[in-house]
Amino acid sequence: MKGKFVFYNRPFDDALIEPGMAYGRAGDQRRIGAIEAGKRGAVGALVRSLTSAHDDYPHTGTMNYDPAVPKVPGAALSTLAADKLSLLLKANKDLEFELQMECVTLPDEKSYNVVGEIKGSKFPDEIITVGGHLDSWDLAEGAHDDGTGVVQSMEALRLLRAAGLKPERTVRAVLFMNEENGNRGGTEYARLAAQNKEKHLAAIESDGGFTPRGFSAEAEPAIVAKLAKWGPLLKPYHASDLTVGHGGTDIGPLKTAVQPKALIGYDGDSQRYFDIHHTAADTFDKVNRRELELGGASMASLIYLLSKYGL
Amino acid sequence: MKGKFVFYNRPFDDALIEPGMAYGRAGDQRRIGAIEAGKRGAVGALVRSLTSAHDDYPHTGTMNYDPAVPKVPGAALSTLAADKLSLLLKANKDLEFELQMECVTLPDEKSYNVVGEIKGSKFPDEIITVGGHLDSWDLAEGAHDDGTGVVQSMEALRLLRAAGLKPERTVRAVLFMNEENGNRGGTEYARLAAQNKEKHLAAIESDGGFTPRGFSAEAEPAIVAKLAKWGPLLKPYHASDLTVGHGGTDIGPLKTAVQPKALIGYDGDSQRYFDIHHTAADTFDKVNRRELELGGASMASLIYLLSKYGL
Repeated sequence: MKGKFVFYNRPFDDALIEPGMAYGRAGDQRRIGAIEAGKRGAVGALVRSLTSAHDDYPHTGTMNYDPAVPKVPGAALSTLAADKLSLLLKANKDLEFELQMECVTLPDEKSYNVVGEIKGSKFPDEIITVGGHLDSWDLAEGAHDDGTGVVQSMEALRLLRAAGLKPERTVRAVLFMNEENGNRGGTEYARLAAQNKEKHLAAIESDGGFTPRGFSAEAEPAIVAKLAKWGPLLKPYHASDLTVGHGGTDIGPLKTAVQPKALIGYDGDSQRYFDIHHTAADTFDKVNRRELELGGASMASLIYLLSKYGL
Repeated sequence: MKGKFVFYNRPFDDALIEPGMAYGRAGDQRRIGAIEAGKRGAVGALVRSLTSAHDDYPHTGTMNYDPAVPKVPGAALSTLAADKLSLLLKANKDLEFELQMECVTLPDEKSYNVVGEIKGSKFPDEIITVGGHLDSWDLAEGAHDDGTGVVQSMEALRLLRAAGLKPERTVRAVLFMNEENGNRGGTEYARLAAQNKEKHLAAIESDGGFTPRGFSAEAEPAIVAKLAKWGPLLKPYHASDLTVGHGGTDIGPLKTAVQPKALIGYDGDSQRYFDIHHTAADTFDKVNRRELELGGASMASLIYLLSKYGL
């Protein structure tokens, strides 16, 4: 593919503190960049990586097409490469760019969610799900997205067991498959939950394992208020900030399928997350053992409270 | 030096969450290890590094002698080396150990604190000091201890200027010298402050630049209560946790010299800090730009409040 440049740019106002919020707002550059480029007669679309790092790792992710618009290729440039390209374009507006891409979508392979549970001692039919996802975005090792969530979900159950606690409600760790590219693991888990007429009290997801800040709850205001009362109990783990927001992609389909009272996302500190998210830099050395453990412990504490007191 | 092993060990109860607290409690192993060893007739003392990391970097720091006890050398082993030694000792209690040390104390060189200030527009005689220290423990590059504090102290003044804010009280950034080995920079700064009959409202120190948690205040309860009321204003930077505790080593001598109303320490998240503190691993790559900036911004905000409303 060869072509000249048409810029697609979108100003955004704040979200200076929360990289996740900034990412949410800027994400359309990548998600619909190729559509906007196609509308304008471009032969391709390039996006400056939606990352907080200045480095040579391109940040990638989902992109969409509109059947009504010519389909053109889209690619992400690393921030350093994009900066360099901008400089070159300032010197020469008619610069030509050659893009060679070797992306292919391979045929599906059968894969599975992995599930383990501790049966509730008093209310075995009431389920608390805690999970992360096994897959990662293709070019990433996926240490924080979402190896940490997988480890913390198992760790939460291990901690309950190691502390000699018998949860009154059933606690189920679910390692979801295919969050990144269709969420079929989460969808299938929810479908089976509905089919089996399971009663789900709450679901917790961890996706990014930095030092604890708290939890994000997707629930009715009365339920959020109940959760907020547990803040002081989670304060020792620095996990007492409760915000109203997204619970998680994997657990999302449970919402309509079995109406749990709350979908809850583990909120790790996000300042480092968008330095590595969906890049080849999301590697195991970015995971800090103590931060990982503290997150797992705060999740275990929340599960214990949910299991003992309900919602 | 050659010798057999005598163990000095001290159980400690909690401090499982706060590495700084654990370090405080376990620190006597290193600080008085050689004294205890000398009392027992040992020819030397080894301490397992007081660090949360399992690696090959020895963690070092201040150690003391007692004139009444024979002086024996003391050294820190990395955690991995100490674990290996423990295994070898289990196999052979009479193991001999040879220790060669090349430590020397070089003659003092003249050095300086570095000071810059913005004069207060309304109360130029009331001073708010913000500082970090220029020196580092000898084997460490000192990126977090305390390059970050130095940068954040300058950054706080830069931010006030960049935001077009004219502080009502004088704000002074002080880059202290010799915190690690005698605190002579802090002592001299306080001595001059007293000599010049300066009025110091408050002093802030940053020593460790991880993602913000809040501030630690050394002040009368009424002053702590005033500071605590600003918590909601610092919440957007995740810097709203106010604890009562140590303000900082550099600013410490101000307390008796000029009685500021509060000594305040910047509290960065501490989970990663004792992986690298006083080791050769305290390098620049451990500093995250966003975390550094957020800390500087939270310090600037606190300074603005102090400058506008006093204490």
